Amino acid sequence: MMQELDLKTVGSRATKVDGPAIVTGRAQYADDVQLPGMVYGRLLHNPHPHARIRRIDTTRALAVPGVVDVVTGADLPDLDLFATDEVCYQGQKVGVVVADDPDVAADALELIEVEYEVLPAVVDPLVALQHDSPPVRLDAPASEHKDADGRVLPNVTTHGELVEGDVERGFAEADVVVEAEYNVPFFHQNYLEPNASTARLEPDGRITIWTAAQGSFNIRDAVAGALRLPHGRIRVIVTQVGGAFGAKNGIFVEAHAAMLAMRLRRPVKITMRRDEEFLDGNPAPGCHVYLKTGARKDGTLTALEGRIVWDRGWLGGGGAANRLRGLYRIPHIKLESYGVRTNKPRPGAYRAPGSIQTAFARESNMDLLARKLNMDPVELRLMNAISTGDPSLNGTPLEKDWLRLTIQRTAAAAEWGKRKLGPNQGIGIACGEWTNGAGPSNAFITLGEDGSVTLLTGQVDITGLHTTLAQIVAEELAVDLTKVKVTLGNTDMVPYTALSAGSLATYSAGTAAREAARRARHRILRAAAEFLEVDADQLEMGAGRVVSRSDASLSVGLAELAASARRSSEGPISGQWVLGSLPTHPSYSVHIATVEVDPGTGRVRLLDLVAGQDVGRALNPMLVEGQIHGGATQCLGLGLMEGYKYGGNEHLLNADLVDNPIPTAMDVPVIRTVMVEEPCSDGPYGAKGVGEPPMIPGAAAIANAIHDAVGIRVTTVPITPERVLRVLQAGAAEQA
Amino acid sequence: MMQELDLKTVGSRATKVDGPAIVTGRAQYADDVQLPGMVYGRLLHNPHPHARIRRIDTTRALAVPGVVDVVTGADLPDLDLFATDEVCYQGQKVGVVVADDPDVAADALELIEVEYEVLPAVVDPLVALQHDSPPVRLDAPASEHKDADGRVLPNVTTHGELVEGDVERGFAEADVVVEAEYNVPFFHQNYLEPNASTARLEPDGRITIWTAAQGSFNIRDAVAGALRLPHGRIRVIVTQVGGAFGAKNGIFVEAHAAMLAMRLRRPVKITMRRDEEFLDGNPAPGCHVYLKTGARKDGTLTALEGRIVWDRGWLGGGGAANRLRGLYRIPHIKLESYGVRTNKPRPGAYRAPGSIQTAFARESNMDLLARKLNMDPVELRLMNAISTGDPSLNGTPLEKDWLRLTIQRTAAAAEWGKRKLGPNQGIGIACGEWTNGAGPSNAFITLGEDGSVTLLTGQVDITGLHTTLAQIVAEELAVDLTKVKVTLGNTDMVPYTALSAGSLATYSAGTAAREAARRARHRILRAAAEFLEVDADQLEMGAGRVVSRSDASLSVGLAELAASARRSSEGPISGQWVLGSLPTHPSYSVHIATVEVDPGTGRVRLLDLVAGQDVGRALNPMLVEGQIHGGATQCLGLGLMEGYKYGGNEHLLNADLVDNPIPTAMDVPVIRTVMVEEPCSDGPYGAKGVGEPPMIPGAAAIANAIHDAVGIRVTTVPITPERVLRVLQAGAAEQA
Repeated sequence: MMQELDLKTVGSRATKVDGPAIVTGRAQYADDVQLPGMVYGRLLHNPHPHARIRRIDTTRALAVPGVVDVVTGADLPDLDLFATDEVCYQGQKVGVVVADDPDVAADALELIEVEYEVLPAVVDPLVALQHDSPPVRLDAPASEHKDADGRVLPNVTTHGELVEGDVERGFAEADVVVEAEYNVPFFHQNYLEPNASTARLEPDGRITIWTAAQGSFNIRDAVAGALRLPHGRIRVIVTQVGGAFGAKNGIFVEAHAAMLAMRLRRPVKITMRRDEEFLDGNPAPGCHVYLKTGARKDGTLTALEGRIVWDRGWLGGGGAANRLRGLYRIPHIKLESYGVRTNKPRPGAYRAPGSIQTAFARESNMDLLARKLNMDPVELRLMNAISTGDPSLNGTPLEKDWLRLTIQRTAAAAEWGKRKLGPNQGIGIACGEWTNGAGPSNAFITLGEDGSVTLLTGQVDITGLHTTLAQIVAEELAVDLTKVKVTLGNTDMVPYTALSAGSLATYSAGTAAREAARRARHRILRAAAEFLEVDADQLEMGAGRVVSRSDASLSVGLAELAASARRSSEGPISGQWVLGSLPTHPSYSVHIATVEVDPGTGRVRLLDLVAGQDVGRALNPMLVEGQIHGGATQCLGLGLMEGYKYGGNEHLLNADLVDNPIPTAMDVPVIRTVMVEEPCSDGPYGAKGVGEPPMIPGAAAIANAIHDAVGIRVTTVPITPERVLRVLQAGAAEQA
Repeated sequence: MMQELDLKTVGSRATKVDGPAIVTGRAQYADDVQLPGMVYGRLLHNPHPHARIRRIDTTRALAVPGVVDVVTGADLPDLDLFATDEVCYQGQKVGVVVADDPDVAADALELIEVEYEVLPAVVDPLVALQHDSPPVRLDAPASEHKDADGRVLPNVTTHGELVEGDVERGFAEADVVVEAEYNVPFFHQNYLEPNASTARLEPDGRITIWTAAQGSFNIRDAVAGALRLPHGRIRVIVTQVGGAFGAKNGIFVEAHAAMLAMRLRRPVKITMRRDEEFLDGNPAPGCHVYLKTGARKDGTLTALEGRIVWDRGWLGGGGAANRLRGLYRIPHIKLESYGVRTNKPRPGAYRAPGSIQTAFARESNMDLLARKLNMDPVELRLMNAISTGDPSLNGTPLEKDWLRLTIQRTAAAAEWGKRKLGPNQGIGIACGEWTNGAGPSNAFITLGEDGSVTLLTGQVDITGLHTTLAQIVAEELAVDLTKVKVTLGNTDMVPYTALSAGSLATYSAGTAAREAARRARHRILRAAAEFLEVDADQLEMGAGRVVSRSDASLSVGLAELAASARRSSEGPISGQWVLGSLPTHPSYSVHIATVEVDPGTGRVRLLDLVAGQDVGRALNPMLVEGQIHGGATQCLGLGLMEGYKYGGNEHLLNADLVDNPIPTAMDVPVIRTVMVEEPCSDGPYGAKGVGEPPMIPGAAAIANAIHDAVGIRVTTVPITPERVLRVLQAGAAEQA
């Protein structure tokens, strides 16, 4: 049962506070920053997957009228902003031209002469994993990883194993075993707003940076790290953010702009083009998964074994196997993981990082298992789902039966098992798990003398956060939502604030806002008690006033209280809260997709998507639905359309939105959302993070629906018509 | 004795934190605000002291290419931004032209046709005071004030009387009585930066205003009042302020820019010219004072009687006589005051408003009395000066013998009575009193992970305040001053903050900063105690670290503590404080001027000025000296050079810096400062406000020195060569 709170503004479908600015085109994004005397940087990117730099000659570029500066790695011996000797991915930064005009800078780029010696490259993680793979980086530290024969694996950067129980025993106990291999390519976050950053050297030697990022403090710290400056030298101002999805957790061109601003003593702006975003962004990592699942005849899961090879791009890095499990009780588990280098850019976060890829494998295997057991896939999941008291993926015991409720309510909404499907139509279900983070956040609230309220927060809004914060403040102070104004503080104004990432923003900043508002409320009630000469506990707040519970004629307006407080010794009414962390809770998402497959062309049409989500409490159902719609749409993109394709000489073939398309309104069905509101005990009003979960299960749900429709299993996303046709034809050949 | 505190940064001569930006010309003043799509307004000012508006025709102005809009009062029937029927001072706003280019707007102004019917005007307050004076405003409410014969005084807006004891008895007890009449004209604050304001209508219907003012909240509230909007509709961002001196307590063109921005839906900037500042600014009010002082033979004051007529410009208003007294014990007092309307702009505040003018009369009379008594003027003041326990002007009993100490130490520094003066040289002393204000202020401090500290305050810096606040934070947290960064919060970020006026800024914001820092310090010590596993009271802070008192090897850096706190549940280390008011204390200033008078030309040269001031504690002696230098220079301006002059048809003759000159480096001697540091119990570290006191006594000290030099009393400022000659000649004629 949902906990009953008497909420007025929280829980309402309030429109976004920044909506008017966005829809009128007047919101100020990163590229909209204009400073007097500003010059423009354009980056030179290496065209080879792997090469040695023999020589760079910038003479001709420097001679172009309007060019202010040309900088390469040779000019910055102590910094790693540009490649100097070796380039390890197509798109790696080699230099920058700064000019009075961005087009002049772009033209001058072509006059920089770089002589490369092309080296062998590898972009397939399974190839890179081998002992005889060409090295991705010649200058990499020697690998400590060896294969079973003791041969050094030059591109392996991490290897891990997760064992619970005895997996061999688990499979021995299984009546049915399924196994498959899955592939997920690099795929891009494709935020609408390309990265842009403007930097200015201040007269006191500090640097101000404007950028559109998911947090100002992490950008500050990353630039400080890149430029080897104390972070106090840097001030970061985050502008309106035009999409981020995890990508804008870190720096792209911020350190380059700052370096140039220091060098030139003029403001410098760098804005990336769309092709630069593909080539030199930080897309989601790809992976190859082998997964084997075993169950008893009755469907009880007994064993899970798997291996995941994470494609970590040129710098390598870790990648866990942990998320191949979760959601279900499985006594015997053995999972192995590799992080390998490839000649690709360094991948970053994309909405539910790690979970999207692993869920595709895990939930596909569950479907295979259901088929082999001849069980309903919903039933199979329900019978194995973890429940109240069971540990979630990160160890926290579940407070409520969130997963099962989400499966049940989503299946009910989708009329699972009751819908009549046409020929070549199929339905599929998949589940996802995410535990939202919680990080440092803060809120500083002031009551003004017209009864309006200001809120200063360090938490960047990428999802409607500031609207929700305004709702929370309006709720706690019983004022109209239009009375609340939210301001994003920069790194000089507020304490360290976490990134708005990991579905933590509303959870953390919402808690800070609620606590700050409650402190202001306490002060208001105290002031009103004095004003009305009654006990504070006799008073309640409502409609911009404080009213006596026993005598409604006894009341005082917030405006009047604020004015009188201003003149008191205690001063204006305010409330403030700073928090570090909070306990967190898992949340679950369940997608049920209905597709129709054209067996002649292989084309898959998504007919219907029911997206269920365990949200704790929907503080603003419209914004939560927006998150679900967006996440589900991105699932569809990964499931059917998106992904980096590599071809001749390991070059990226589709660094553009024509060949690497994202779903348009023509591709997306009406997405039906199911919000499961079973509050958790720690989020504001019981809310959980809602940003990542809707991205997780969709691709698997689509693959499962395709299987249902035409009886084939496609294990590589995106499930393009070519792949469907190929599997259909292989299946026909097998049958023949 | 000065209270001994072990202070390191507080009390040091730290250079201004905004110094580099100012001296490199990179500080952003109000006119430096540039917004895309911005248009420029230029105001049309009426040329007559008093007239009726018959007709306004804007057709030709509107037809000028580049002109975007022309607005007059007829377009704004509900607002009082422009005169519509009657103009009551030369310079009153009649309309505005908005154009793409400010010069186009200025040119188009000349094409607005206004037909005036000139009306009788009056600019002399003593004339305006009479029953038969022409009315300053035809549309003014009927006056309630009458003369002794029962005749209505049409231009009198206030009348007050202050009586203590029995003044007739006081004069009966006097052995010596002096009386004189004094005149002070309107005089201008002459801040270097003319007023400018830019306004933008935001997509959500709110208005953002950039301006250089002494406070953001008062501008917000004044614009809200002028435009009849709730103040929450308005956000004010204060830029660097290029001088204010009390003038920028209120709005000049802010409401006009905001109105135009709303009307045109484009950003609008209005920047005033210097002549507009003279004609349509808010200079200090002038006054006429009659003052009579009586004393016994031994110098004991017995009675004070006076009348002050305040020249309040076209809108009239109050004006107290209270400040004709103060500083000295006088048992019998009767003071009368009038506030009268004249056909002049509405005057405003100028550094120690009301005290400058009254001190000129009071301290001149003290000098006349000393001469008549044949007493040393210093002795006369010392014997009558209020002392510990006596009530100051605003009633607070003096905690210390501040006035006497300041007289004594200043006299000692000036070698009073010991210096040999040449022919036509003279020395004079005068005293002033000011009680600094205290108003709502706030501070929000954060410790960063490089050990740097940020401070967010709503208090505008017009005097070096932010430098002093940084010193206070550095002191409390034992960090280097360069580690502290101060940010001015706008009206959406911080609680209501008082104007930086009335010498309250350091007193109030400094207290808030100290209290916020102490809260951060407490948290730091607690975190360090946990980190080092010792009791917090065993720890002390120093040089960016927390160290054990008993074992110096036990220590932890602030940077490390901040980083560890970020990951704690309590979160980042911060400290915050909001205050409303504080008890206040009087402070005293004593100027001793040495002049040389050229009897042939009447020219007065200020040879030497010793400016003593009771500062409580000089938090930054360099900045305090800067305040004293500036105030003393402005005294000199008023005393010898400045002031509005009216001529034919009551027109202002000198609306420019050639005919209304301010002192230059050629006019100002080396000013020797004496800081009397006897802390009060409420200001931060015992500091008192220091901004206004140095402006108060200088003009009288100069007049007294002239009397000493050449035996004549000039009772009207500025004491121009013409006035000196005239009095010299009159004295010679009398003697003849």
